[in-house]
Amino acid sequence: MIIAIKQGTPEEEIRSLAAGLEKQGVQVHVSAGVSQTVLGLVGDTAAIDADALSAHHLVEKVIRVQEPYKRANRKLHPSDTVISIAGCGAASGNTVHRIGDGFFGVIAGPCSVETPEQIVSIAQEVKKAGASFLRGGAFKPRTSPYSFQGLGANGLELLLEAKKATGLPIVTELMDMQQIDLFNDVDVIQVGARNMQNFSMLKELGCCKKPILLKRGYAATFTELLMAAEYIMRGGNDSVILCERGIRTFETYTRNTLDISAVPALKRQSHLPVIVDPSHAAGLSWMVPALSKAAIAAGADGIIVEVHNNPEKALCDGEQSITPAAFAELMKTLRKYMELEGKRLA
Amino acid sequence: MIIAIKQGTPEEEIRSLAAGLEKQGVQVHVSAGVSQTVLGLVGDTAAIDADALSAHHLVEKVIRVQEPYKRANRKLHPSDTVISIAGCGAASGNTVHRIGDGFFGVIAGPCSVETPEQIVSIAQEVKKAGASFLRGGAFKPRTSPYSFQGLGANGLELLLEAKKATGLPIVTELMDMQQIDLFNDVDVIQVGARNMQNFSMLKELGCCKKPILLKRGYAATFTELLMAAEYIMRGGNDSVILCERGIRTFETYTRNTLDISAVPALKRQSHLPVIVDPSHAAGLSWMVPALSKAAIAAGADGIIVEVHNNPEKALCDGEQSITPAAFAELMKTLRKYMELEGKRLA
Amino acid sequence: MIIAIKQGTPEEEIRSLAAGLEKQGVQVHVSAGVSQTVLGLVGDTAAIDADALSAHHLVEKVIRVQEPYKRANRKLHPSDTVISIAGCGAASGNTVHRIGDGFFGVIAGPCSVETPEQIVSIAQEVKKAGASFLRGGAFKPRTSPYSFQGLGANGLELLLEAKKATGLPIVTELMDMQQIDLFNDVDVIQVGARNMQNFSMLKELGCCKKPILLKRGYAATFTELLMAAEYIMRGGNDSVILCERGIRTFETYTRNTLDISAVPALKRQSHLPVIVDPSHAAGLSWMVPALSKAAIAAGADGIIVEVHNNPEKALCDGEQSITPAAFAELMKTLRKYMELEGKRLA
Amino acid sequence: MIIAIKQGTPEEEIRSLAAGLEKQGVQVHVSAGVSQTVLGLVGDTAAIDADALSAHHLVEKVIRVQEPYKRANRKLHPSDTVISIAGCGAASGNTVHRIGDGFFGVIAGPCSVETPEQIVSIAQEVKKAGASFLRGGAFKPRTSPYSFQGLGANGLELLLEAKKATGLPIVTELMDMQQIDLFNDVDVIQVGARNMQNFSMLKELGCCKKPILLKRGYAATFTELLMAAEYIMRGGNDSVILCERGIRTFETYTRNTLDISAVPALKRQSHLPVIVDPSHAAGLSWMVPALSKAAIAAGADGIIVEVHNNPEKALCDGEQSITPAAFAELMKTLRKYMELEGKRLA
Repeated sequence: MIIAIKQGTPEEEIRSLAAGLEKQGVQVHVSAGVSQTVLGLVGDTAAIDADALSAHHLVEKVIRVQEPYKRANRKLHPSDTVISIAGCGAASGNTVHRIGDGFFGVIAGPCSVETPEQIVSIAQEVKKAGASFLRGGAFKPRTSPYSFQGLGANGLELLLEAKKATGLPIVTELMDMQQIDLFNDVDVIQVGARNMQNFSMLKELGCCKKPILLKRGYAATFTELLMAAEYIMRGGNDSVILCERGIRTFETYTRNTLDISAVPALKRQSHLPVIVDPSHAAGLSWMVPALSKAAIAAGADGIIVEVHNNPEKALCDGEQSITPAAFAELMKTLRKYMELEGKRLA
Repeated sequence: MIIAIKQGTPEEEIRSLAAGLEKQGVQVHVSAGVSQTVLGLVGDTAAIDADALSAHHLVEKVIRVQEPYKRANRKLHPSDTVISIAGCGAASGNTVHRIGDGFFGVIAGPCSVETPEQIVSIAQEVKKAGASFLRGGAFKPRTSPYSFQGLGANGLELLLEAKKATGLPIVTELMDMQQIDLFNDVDVIQVGARNMQNFSMLKELGCCKKPILLKRGYAATFTELLMAAEYIMRGGNDSVILCERGIRTFETYTRNTLDISAVPALKRQSHLPVIVDPSHAAGLSWMVPALSKAAIAAGADGIIVEVHNNPEKALCDGEQSITPAAFAELMKTLRKYMELEGKRLA
Repeated sequence: MIIAIKQGTPEEEIRSLAAGLEKQGVQVHVSAGVSQTVLGLVGDTAAIDADALSAHHLVEKVIRVQEPYKRANRKLHPSDTVISIAGCGAASGNTVHRIGDGFFGVIAGPCSVETPEQIVSIAQEVKKAGASFLRGGAFKPRTSPYSFQGLGANGLELLLEAKKATGLPIVTELMDMQQIDLFNDVDVIQVGARNMQNFSMLKELGCCKKPILLKRGYAATFTELLMAAEYIMRGGNDSVILCERGIRTFETYTRNTLDISAVPALKRQSHLPVIVDPSHAAGLSWMVPALSKAAIAAGADGIIVEVHNNPEKALCDGEQSITPAAFAELMKTLRKYMELEGKRLA
Repeated sequence: MIIAIKQGTPEEEIRSLAAGLEKQGVQVHVSAGVSQTVLGLVGDTAAIDADALSAHHLVEKVIRVQEPYKRANRKLHPSDTVISIAGCGAASGNTVHRIGDGFFGVIAGPCSVETPEQIVSIAQEVKKAGASFLRGGAFKPRTSPYSFQGLGANGLELLLEAKKATGLPIVTELMDMQQIDLFNDVDVIQVGARNMQNFSMLKELGCCKKPILLKRGYAATFTELLMAAEYIMRGGNDSVILCERGIRTFETYTRNTLDISAVPALKRQSHLPVIVDPSHAAGLSWMVPALSKAAIAAGADGIIVEVHNNPEKALCDGEQSITPAAFAELMKTLRKYMELEGKRLA
C-alpha cells in the first residue's frame, strides 16, 4: 500500500502517522521526495482500512498495490483449484465430476423445478448430451412478490429424485441460511447474484463442507467478487466456483451484458475455477450458443445453462431457456472447442 | 399490459393464446390491426409473468403499461405516507418523530458504534443540532472480511444507552434475520443496499411491526426498489421509508453517483417517504452539505447523514463523515431550505 | 505522478528507467523501500503518457497525484471565472449578462427554432420571466437521419431576429466547423454532449473569441470533461462554461441520470462556471422544477432549460419542454433559492 | 409503432390525434379496448418522432415494434454484406481482401504510425502472419491536449509507403472532414468511437465511395450504432463495417468492458459485417488472445488488433499492443477457430 502525503506536511506529523500505522501491524517506509512524501506499507496490509486512511487530513491519496484478498489470490496459490464431486448411487457409474484445471464442467437444467416428470426427463436428456451437473431452482429469487417463488422444499426433493435417477450431482440456490438443513444432499450450493454481498450468509457458508457456486453480483467488480469468495474461504471452505452471469449496463437489448473479460481477468487473479452463465447473461435463448462458445474460447472452466423441455410454458425465465435438443446440439459444438482448448468433460 | 403479436400469426393461434391468458385471471381484448395484432390485458396483470410471455413463439413484444407494484403505488394510495415514532422515556419530552408528508426527518450518527462515550456524545450533539433520529452501525456489511465488522450485539446495547440518554429513536442495520430478536428496542430497521433484494429477509420483515428504512441497491432501478418495498408491504408492514444512496456508474471521483432524480421519480410513483443519504452517495464529507441541500430542494422527506466526532479515527468510512460542528452548521442551512419547501422537523 | 516498480527489479534497471523519464522534462525521486521501490515524478507531468508507462515491463502501477489539466485547474487559478456578454441594441437596455462568480445565468428557449413567431414570442416570454440568454437549436444532432434536423442557417437567422427583438444573447449549438462562419453573431457557441470529444472541433474553438458552452458527454468522467475544456483553453480561449446534462446509466425511467455531484465536484476542481441542463437530464418536463432547484442548491452557476409554447407540437424533444407559464413559475421559486445561496441574475 | 392512450380519453380526441398522425404518412388503426385504447401505426414509422409523441397529453406510452433503421436492417436485406478491397500494386499479388459473409478479416498494426521503419516492418510482419489489412493511426484522438497527437499528414504518407511495400490495404481514422482530401489513397476510413455520433461527419461519409469502419461509441446502444450506420448508408454508401470495441461500465480492471453479445446481436439485427477490437476493449495486451478467440467464437467477421514492435516505447497505448511474435502465435490459434466456424481469411 502506498500513501501519498499532502504537500507541505511537517516531518513530525508524518512520523506520527507512520507510527500509528506500524501499531496496526505493518512496516512503514517513509520516502521523502522533493515535493512529495510517500509512505510505503509492507506486511499484512489487508487489515488496513484504506477508506479510513483516505479521510486522514495529511493524506492525499491511498493506493493499494497488493490485492486485498489472500486465500483467493493466485499469487499465493499458483495452481488451479479443481472442484471434484463423486457421483452417487448406481446411476452414477462411479463417475467423479470435476470443474477446473482442464476439466470443463457443464451444469444444465431448468430455471425452476416444476414437476417430477419435468425434472427427471430434463436430467436424463442433459446427462445424455454430456452435462456433468444438474441445476434447477427450488427457492427462486423473483423481483416481484407476485411471481412464482419456486416449489421450495418440495422442489429440493424433486431434484434429489432426478439425482437418484441419473447420478448427476445437484446444483441449486440457497436463499436463506434458515433453510440450510434442507440442503444436506445437495452437492453444490449456489449463492445468487443478489446475495453475493450477503456477508452473513457468506460467513456461514465458510463453515460448510460443500462447494459453493458464487455468482457475480450484477454490479460487482472483480475485486468485490473475489472478496466475497474470500469471506467463504476464510471460514475454511476453499471450494468456491466463480460465475460470471452478466453485469448491468445501459444496453437494454440483452437483459444483462456478459462481461467476457471476467474470465481471463478472474483466472489471472485467482486460482478458483471460473464458469459462465450464458442464459442469464443475455436473457435470450437464441444467444446461448454464441455466448457459450465465447466462454470456452475465453478460457472458462465451465458453463451453467438453462434447459427446459417447454420454454414457452416455463414458470420462469422461459425466454432464456433452450430445449434439450438445442442443448445436445450445443454440446456437440462445445466438444470441438474443448478439444482446441485442451479441456475435457468429467 | 400490451402484447404485440408477431406478424402473420393465424387468428386461431391468437385466440388460443388469449384463452390461456384469461385462465390466469385477466381479461384479454384482441385488437386485430391491418398488419399488427395487439392484445390488451386488463385486470390483475401483476401476476402475469412478462418474461415467460416474451418467450412465447407468437409474441413480438410485451409492454407493461401498469406498474407491477400495488401497495407501494401512489395511483392506488394517493396520500403521502407518514412514519411516526414516539420518543421514549423522560429524555424524549414526549416528542413524536416523523418522516413524510411535510415532515423532514434528519437521521444522524456515526457509521459504526465504537464506545459508549462516542455514541452518547454524538447522539447529544446531533439532537441539539436538530436531528430527529440517531443512526449507528452495530452489524456492519464490509467488502473485506478483514475489515472491522462492527461491535454486533454490544453495539446495539450502546445504541440503546444513547437512546436512553437522548430520547432519540434508533435506526440501525439488520444484516441477518437470525439476529432479529436483538432488534426489539430498535425503532427503525435498516435494510442495506446489498440486501435490497434479499427476498427472504424482505418477506420476514413484512411480518414485523417496525418501520423499515429500505436502501436502494446500488444498481437497482426505481421499479426494483419499489418491488422490494412491495415484498415488505405485502406481508402487512406498510411503514417503509425509501432511501436513495447513490448508484454505481462509470464515474470514480465520487464513490457512487447520487441519483437526485430518484426523489421526484419515487415520490410520483409511490406514496412512501423518500430520503437521501448524502454521505454514502459521494463518499466525500465535504460534499455532504451540497448534496443535502440538493436533496431537500428536489423534494426529499429527509436525509440520513454520517456524523463522527473524530472522522480521522473512525473505524469505518471516516472519509464521508462530518463533524458535529459541521452538522450543526448544515442544520442551520437546511432549516432555511425547509422553510422554502414548506417542510418542518419533528 | 507516482510509479510503483515491480518487486525484485534490479537497481540498475530502475536507474535507467528514471533517466529516461528525466529526459522527458520531469525530476524523478527514487524511494527504495524494503519490498517496494517507488518513483516520485515532479514537474510538468501532464506531458508524461501514463498509459505508455503502464506498459513498461518494470512498472507495477502508475498513479497520477496531480490533475492532468492546468488552465482549467482551480489550484492554479483559485478565483471563479465569470463569463460576461454585453446585450445588444436598444432592446438590451445595455445590460451585461453574466454567468459565474455569484451570477446565476438562466438560458432558456426551445429545443428547435421553428418559425419567426415561435422563437420571438418565446424569447419575449422567457426574458420577461428573467432569463438572461436565449437558447434554440438551428442545427440539431438527431439519433435518426429520418428525424427533423433543424432549420439550419435559416434557424440561425430567426434566432438573430429574436435577439434583435429582445436583446437577449443567443446560445446555439455548432455541429460542424464548416459552419462556423454562420455563427458570427451568435454569442455563446454550444458544443453538444456527442461532440465533447470531437478534438478537432475543440482545438479550432480554442482560436475563437466567443464563450463556449461545453456539455458533458453522456459517458464522460469529470476529468475527461475538464480535459475537453483544456483543449479549448490551450488555444487561448478561456471562456468555457461547463454543463452537466445527465449521464447514461442502467436506469431507464429518466432518459439520463442527472449527476448532481458534478456541480460541487467540478467547481472544486476548476474555476470555470458550471451549469445544469435539467431538461435533457431527465427528459421529463414535470421533473424540470425539482432538478432546477437541486442544481442551484448544489451550487450551480446557472441552468439551461427548454421552454416551448406548445410542447405537444414541438418538432423535437417536446416531452422535456415546459411552457412559458411554467417557466415563469419556476423563475419565481428560483429567485428565492438564489437569495438563500447569495446569487443573483444578470 | 404502438401508442397506448391514457385511460378516460374521449373518443373524439383520439380520432383527432389519429388524424394528425395519418397526415404524417402512416396508417393508424384504432383498437378501443375495455379500459385501454391502443393505436397501431403501420407504414413508414421511421419518420415519426417517438419523443414528440410521448409528450402528447393523451399519450401514456409509445412503443416501437419496428426498428427505426432500414438500410442497415437485416429484415429488409437478409443476405450478409461483404466488404471487398482489391490489393494494390505488385506486392498485392492481386489479392482481394474481404470482410463478412464467411470471410474473417484481420486488421493489424500499431496504434500510431511513428517512423517509416516501424510501420513498414510491422506491416511486413503482420502480413506474413496472415493479416489482411494494415491499421495505423496518423491523426490520433487523445484525451489530453498534451499527449502525442499523431504524425498527421506525414503519418498517412508513411502508411501509404507500407501499403506499397506490402500490398496491404490501409485502415486509418479520420477525425475531421477538413482532412478528407488526404485520405484519397486510404482503403478503409475509420470513424472513432468518440465520433460515432458526429452526425455531420457521418452524413458526408455517406457520399464517399470508401468502406467505413464504424466504431461503437463507448456508451452507445446497438440501436444507436445501427442508426449511425444508417446515416452513412442513407447517403448512398452501403459499405459499413461495425466494430465493437468495449463499452464503459463500473468495472475498472479493464479499460472498457467488451460487450461480446454485440456480435450475435448486431448480426441478427443487421446484414453488415461486425468485427471486434480486443485491444481497446480491455486495454491489456495479455488479454488480447482470449478476447480474439471469444470474438470469433461469438460469430465475429474479423478483428482489429494493435501490434507494435516495441510496446514499451510505443508513443501511445503501449499497454494494449502485442508484439509481432505474439500476433503470429495468435493467428495460428485463430486459424483453428476459423476452421471450426467455417470462416476463412482473404
